[in-house]
This record gives sequence, C-alpha cells and structure tokens, in this order.
Amino acid sequence: MGEFELIRHYFAAAPCAQAGDGVALGIGDDCALLALPAGQQLAVSTDTLVAGVHFPDAAEPFLLGQRALAVAASDLAAMGAEPIGFTLALTLPSVAEGWLQGFAEGLNRMASQCRLSLIGGDTTRGPLSLTMTVFGRVPAGQALLRSGARAGDLLCVGGVLGDAAGALPLVLGQAEAVDAVAASLLAHYWSPPPQFGLGLALRGKATAAMDISDGLLADCGHIASASGVALALELEALPLSNALLALLGRQAAQTAALTGGDDYVLVFSLPPEHLPALRAEGWPIHVLGQVREGQGVCLLDACGHDITPAVRGYQHFRETP
Amino acid sequence: MGEFELIRHYFAAAPCAQAGDGVALGIGDDCALLALPAGQQLAVSTDTLVAGVHFPDAAEPFLLGQRALAVAASDLAAMGAEPIGFTLALTLPSVAEGWLQGFAEGLNRMASQCRLSLIGGDTTRGPLSLTMTVFGRVPAGQALLRSGARAGDLLCVGGVLGDAAGALPLVLGQAEAVDAVAASLLAHYWSPPPQFGLGLALRGKATAAMDISDGLLADCGHIASASGVALALELEALPLSNALLALLGRQAAQTAALTGGDDYVLVFSLPPEHLPALRAEGWPIHVLGQVREGQGVCLLDACGHDITPAVRGYQHFRETP
Repeated sequence: MGEFELIRHYFAAAPCAQAGDGVALGIGDDCALLALPAGQQLAVSTDTLVAGVHFPDAAEPFLLGQRALAVAASDLAAMGAEPIGFTLALTLPSVAEGWLQGFAEGLNRMASQCRLSLIGGDTTRGPLSLTMTVFGRVPAGQALLRSGARAGDLLCVGGVLGDAAGALPLVLGQAEAVDAVAASLLAHYWSPPPQFGLGLALRGKATAAMDISDGLLADCGHIASASGVALALELEALPLSNALLALLGRQAAQTAALTGGDDYVLVFSLPPEHLPALRAEGWPIHVLGQVREGQGVCLLDACGHDITPAVRGYQHFRETP
Repeated sequence: MGEFELIRHYFAAAPCAQAGDGVALGIGDDCALLALPAGQQLAVSTDTLVAGVHFPDAAEPFLLGQRALAVAASDLAAMGAEPIGFTLALTLPSVAEGWLQGFAEGLNRMASQCRLSLIGGDTTRGPLSLTMTVFGRVPAGQALLRSGARAGDLLCVGGVLGDAAGALPLVLGQAEAVDAVAASLLAHYWSPPPQFGLGLALRGKATAAMDISDGLLADCGHIASASGVALALELEALPLSNALLALLGRQAAQTAALTGGDDYVLVFSLPPEHLPALRAEGWPIHVLGQVREGQGVCLLDACGHDITPAVRGYQHFRETP
C-alpha cells in the first residue's frame, strides 16, 4: 500500500486551511481539529457514491470529483451553514495516475468554489467508491431544519427542477440531444452549485428547508412528515428550464421535476412576508404552493383539482413516508 | 432502495445523544449539529474498511461491528480527545437481516462502551465496505500531536504489542491455537479497546502521541519525522503477552510487536518526571526507549548494539519515512 502515499500529492492543490476559518489542524495527524467561534454549532453530513450505482464506472474523473463534493456540500447549504471543510475516504481498485489527477482537479475546483478545505481522509484499495463528510458552522439555534414548516407558509424552491433527471439518459449514453441542450443539462448534473448563499439568506426567515436529492415530491414528503403539516404543490408552478422542455416536452419535464431527484436546489417553507425582501436581494425563488394543516403532499392542477394519484407509482415517490 | 429504510431499525439501539454531551441534533435532517463548550476544539478522523482487504468477507458481523468502531475511535483517544459521536457510511451488496442485526449489535456494544453516539450516515448498495467518521472534543491547545517529542523524553506504549498480528492467521483460518491462546489473541484483534482514559491522563504530560495501527516501527517513524527527532527502542523492552509468546515464541513475537500493526494502543513520548505519577494512577505504561537528537528510528539489543538493519525489509517498516 506504500504507493497510496503518492495519492496525497494529487490532492495537495486543495484549498489550504487558513487560520481563523475554523480548521485548527489539517491533514497529517491522527485527527484534524476544528475550532468554532463561540455560539456556533458544527453541521456534519456524510454521503457515499459507489461506482456502478451512483455513477458510471467510466465517468470522467474530473466531473466525478466536482459532483461528489457538490452533492455532499449541498447538505450544509440546506442547513444554512457556512462551509468549513471536508474529509475524503477514497477506495480505489488501483492507482491510475491519469484518473487520480483528473479526479483531484475536479474535487479541488469545487472545493475552491465552495471554500471547503480538505482536512483529512483515508485511502484504501477496493471497488471504486468515495465517502465525503462535510463540515460547516451555523449560529446555535439558526440552522434550517425540516421540522418547522407551518400552515400559511409558502412552499418555495431555489431554482429550476428536473435538469439532472433529464441529463441522466445522456450521462448513461442512453439518449442524445443537440449540443446546447445537452451542455446545459449535463452542467447541472455534473456540477450542481451548492446554494450556500441562499441558505444563509434564509436563516431566520425560512421555517423549514432541505436540498432536493430524492426528488421534489419525496423530499416535500420529508418536510411534511417532520413538520406535521400538509404541502400543496401546483403543477403549473414548477420551474422548468428551456433545455429540459426542449428535450422532453412539458409533460415529461414536469414528471422529471416532480420525481427525478438529484436537483440539489433548496426547497423551503417561507412565511409570505419574507418573500419581497428575498426577491429584492435577487434570489431565484419560485413559489410552488402552500403549507396547510394536515399531512402528506398533494399536487394540484391549474383548476385546483388534486391530481396526486396520477403521479404516484414512481420509485422515488413510493419512498415518501 | 426503499428497503434500505429498514436498516435504520437495526441501529436504533445505538446510544442516544443526551442533551449536553455535544450532540445538538442527531439523525434525521440534512446534517447533524454538534455543540462544543467554549474553549474546546473538535477532533475528527475517518477510517474505511473494505471486505476482502481489511477483513474477510465471511467475518462475523458482530465482531466486525465492534472492531470497525474501535479502530476508528482509537484515533480520538490518541489525540487526548473525549468521545462525542460518529457517522456510519455503510455499503452493502444486499439487505441480509441476520448480518445487519449482528453488525448493529456489535457496533452498538462498542458505541456504548466508548460513549459514542451515532449521529448520522448513509446507506448505499454496492460491494461491502464501511467508512466511520468519529468526533471528539479536546480543550484548545491540549490535543496530543505527533510533533512535540523532544530529546530526553521517554518513549512509551500503553499496552502489550503484537497480539493482533499474532491473531491474524487465526482470523484468516491459516493457523490454529489452543483455546486459551486463541481466545486471548482474537479478543485483542476483534475488540481493541480505544485508550480514551490513558489519552486523557496524558494531556499536558506526553509531548507526542499516536495510536499504533501500521506497526510500532512504522508509527514511531511518523513521530520521529513529525517531531524532528530520533527514537531509540530497546528490543528487550517490548511488552509481549503470554498468549503471543506461547503461539509464536520470543523471536517471532518480537517481530510481530515491531512490525505487525493493528495494536491500537498508544505510543507516546513522555518527559521522565511524569512517569511516577502516571504509574501511581495505575496506567499500564511500558518504557521502550528514549527520544534523542537526530532522525529516524533505531532498534537496540540488550548490549545497546544497533540491530535495526536486521528487522528492515518488512512491509510496514518500508513505509516509514
């Protein structure tokens, strides 16, 4: 395993921890040490990606490195946390220098973009997979939980939905699209920017928040369940990109937005009085519906009719509690 | 993947986070939240174990659960940190209920023993592997690093060495031993108790410390390198268990102690004036040698002759910087 020592070189370009940014001791000892300002709490989340399950074995390593960190970091943004750092547990069948260099470049690019420092990790031999644990800080009591949505709040999302689901057949080589459409969708799939700025802006305003990973309906189900409320979504309010509409047409694009997953935009409940100020600050907030008393998630057509049964049966939606 | 929801039940018996023990929010949201008392830093370490590489595919799941957490937690003890919690990223080829129940029981047993709360994780489908990230707290400036050893310090370990290396052929079914010997060695392999108490006792006394995972010589090499000193070890001072001596004889037992790895006892440098008080407190401290000016690690026989070249050539030792 001595060769694995070499791997460290590839990650040397990751952002270095600076004094005062929360990392008191980085890579190289038994543990890293994180320091928090008084009154702050540490937000922690772990995500694993397995080759052949979460990404194709032949995935471009630069893109994989970017996406793996973005997906993990999105959980910090969803808590309203500010980024500190991350650990990388990388399992590799062998040391392929070209692959490692590309992966490290993609990882380092996203780390710089997110201001996350690599603080430690483990490198082992085995079937390709990676586990990221990400760390952020948030003032005590100000984290955005899933459990605070209240009847009367608006239900909102922070960006267009369904692009990653639309991109998946392109990623898997099962479909093709004209260049402009493919580029736009693939960019969202491979490099979904964690919404740290929006998460910060929602502190003290949003009553519940999470990032959309399982799909809008499934994740709304998690908020409804944790908050003990019902969520009513309007089909015609779903924000859809022109690229997705061009690829799939409106009906399939709506289905992708509802059930596709991997969007990594924030979905949140917001008392209506906060909407004008947030929009004035320029945040791309789309109102999808309302929080109501009750339980579960329902989908309404343009006439206000409940059309939820028509979209049931999709795998992700079945998982909704 | 809906069946993976079931897995949560198996870990429900893990110790629950109590208010005030550092976990402000546990499993169930986008992130866990950790709270630290003023003046404390958070210690973080990540370890991955892969089936067929770090443990046999057929390993007893209860034992695997115990050992996986113990190995990860040992890094916290080596920093002088007190335990807070851990995340578990578990990748499984399928949901085998018997396996999961055994694994969870072993994990929960060690978590209770170490006072570590399960605060989050991820469960994915794929080749069997697990990544633990462990969290502890230590007063700012009091963590035990690898870098503080000074000429004149004693070099010490916190327990017998080589038992896990002696057990490995038994674990792999490549050797047999009489019951009493096998039981003693296998206990050390499958359930090495993290030395949290000793780590705490060494705060403010030891000048450098780490836990022995790669083998005594290799890990001493890490301390020598990080501290910019030389370490001189005396062969006859190696603490060896009766079980290891019975299985291997003295010479092979010494080799196991020097190069075998997986001991998970602390190795540390200690100014001599602190030794009597620590021994009076009952800590099982064995003095192996001295810290000197210079660099590297050397091994001395009973006459003080340098016999280092005779033990070079072992894989782990080759990794020493």
